[in-house]
Amino acid sequence: MARIETLAIVGVGLIGGSLALALKESGAVGRVLGVGRSRGNLDDALRLGIIDEAVSLEQAAKADVIFVATPVAQMGAVFDSLKPHLVAHAVITDGGSTKQDVIESAKRALGESVKRFVPAHPIAGTEKTGAAAAFASLYRDRKVVVCSHDALDADAADIVTHMWKSTGAAIHAMSARDHDDVFAAVSHLPHLLAFALVDMLAAAPQADQYFKFAASGFRDFTRIAGGSPEMWRDISAANRIELRKQLAGYRSRLDDFDRWLAAGAPSDVSQIEASYARASRARNAWQRHIEHGEPMPRLAGGGQEE
Amino acid sequence: MARIETLAIVGVGLIGGSLALALKESGAVGRVLGVGRSRGNLDDALRLGIIDEAVSLEQAAKADVIFVATPVAQMGAVFDSLKPHLVAHAVITDGGSTKQDVIESAKRALGESVKRFVPAHPIAGTEKTGAAAAFASLYRDRKVVVCSHDALDADAADIVTHMWKSTGAAIHAMSARDHDDVFAAVSHLPHLLAFALVDMLAAAPQADQYFKFAASGFRDFTRIAGGSPEMWRDISAANRIELRKQLAGYRSRLDDFDRWLAAGAPSDVSQIEASYARASRARNAWQRHIEHGEPMPRLAGGGQEE
Repeated sequence: MARIETLAIVGVGLIGGSLALALKESGAVGRVLGVGRSRGNLDDALRLGIIDEAVSLEQAAKADVIFVATPVAQMGAVFDSLKPHLVAHAVITDGGSTKQDVIESAKRALGESVKRFVPAHPIAGTEKTGAAAAFASLYRDRKVVVCSHDALDADAADIVTHMWKSTGAAIHAMSARDHDDVFAAVSHLPHLLAFALVDMLAAAPQADQYFKFAASGFRDFTRIAGGSPEMWRDISAANRIELRKQLAGYRSRLDDFDRWLAAGAPSDVSQIEASYARASRARNAWQRHIEHGEPMPRLAGGGQEE
Repeated sequence: MARIETLAIVGVGLIGGSLALALKESGAVGRVLGVGRSRGNLDDALRLGIIDEAVSLEQAAKADVIFVATPVAQMGAVFDSLKPHLVAHAVITDGGSTKQDVIESAKRALGESVKRFVPAHPIAGTEKTGAAAAFASLYRDRKVVVCSHDALDADAADIVTHMWKSTGAAIHAMSARDHDDVFAAVSHLPHLLAFALVDMLAAAPQADQYFKFAASGFRDFTRIAGGSPEMWRDISAANRIELRKQLAGYRSRLDDFDRWLAAGAPSDVSQIEASYARASRARNAWQRHIEHGEPMPRLAGGGQEE
């Protein structure tokens, strides 16, 4: 497949910058344009060879592929600004953590051009942000989810799939709904739970004591509560339907635990142990899977997909 | 203060074994006796110089200090077995993760000898278990909580405090109730929450997909769900009163989040962001505190203690 002559990155941070660096390294891109609101960050990106030119959204719209790596809540406005200036063959794609809402806003903003919009989500990141944090190998052996929608041109999807393959990532096709369900479960809900716990403890009269005696288990459990409040607000709101479904299931589990703890009879304590034991088995099997490549066993509820 | 001539360790694992090694290294102990149910583990402890002799509970009761490092649910039975054989000056202490219930069972089992029982909790550990995992520096610069109770002899408390200081640990006196509240908040509830999430996801029809796309945030959030189901069942049940208080506060927070997500108006989304932002500030301040020793700021709710 031909390389991308001109790639525009809207939002030149860790995600967009690392994509540019990876594609440059593999020769899969010619020229890279960058759009951003912070002049200092764009200067970093120019200095580091991530982008070749800082441009306006209007100029970015003339690129062959336009990668939108802004927070998901801003994507609708970006699509609106791009729309009048798009060339017919241009492919627009994104890197947002939610997909159903991004597709909806692309449909609203892009009109017929939505057939050139390929929703995607690279599953990678670090604690750092900004162009200076970008590096070419961020996506190597990581997963990138590419979603479809009913209006999508097959060749546009192929271009985006090829682009991500060039970074060393493994491509996973998934419906936008399945995507949003999966990431509500394994990312958005855990973030909400960690934020909620830390906020509760920080607001308690004994907060100083709590943080004084918190140890390594607490440190790991709450690491994701150090994330960006704005970004996670946007993701929580954007994916609120799937997030509420997962939250409802979780609240119902906590109701069970409270009932078992309140009753405290041997049969209740056995229920607590049984739940902990199922969790521990699954968690340890998954750890062996990600660390040593051991096959993941069929889980109690698993096996209906793939 | 004089060294401990004979120390008995009941349950020679990571916690008890590391105490023995630390005290031997600092010359704070003469002879160490070990009690355990696994012959292989006691052989390890003998071979590694952690204990000098494997003995019965009856023989252990003759020691000057008896450290009970079994799971909390077994401590009542250990105290029962020790009671008839204790010498008058013997000090009994423990390393359990809950304190009010251990004090209750000590009172029941030890009768008048409870005046020689010093409840304590070393805040240290690793992922590993068993005597072979023990090492002398486990407690260096870590915290050990020493609790009092109404019948306690001052000299018994001094002996245990001196013992733990000899390992390099910092001693924190705290009421048993405060202890159980603090550790319900920063340890027992997080464990329950992590176990509950992993069990819920493993039971879902899409479980295979969930674990396939789970990434580093999920890994850290759920690390503590790989812990021992039996141990955490015991801790949850032993501390169920304080754990239910924390759980009630947390469930109420999740009710708020569900309401905000359901309504989804700008004011609701602002509430979500405000909670995430308070959590993120507290979490990042705490991280800087534990990593770089920066002073912990007064938290919103903090300041009533110490």
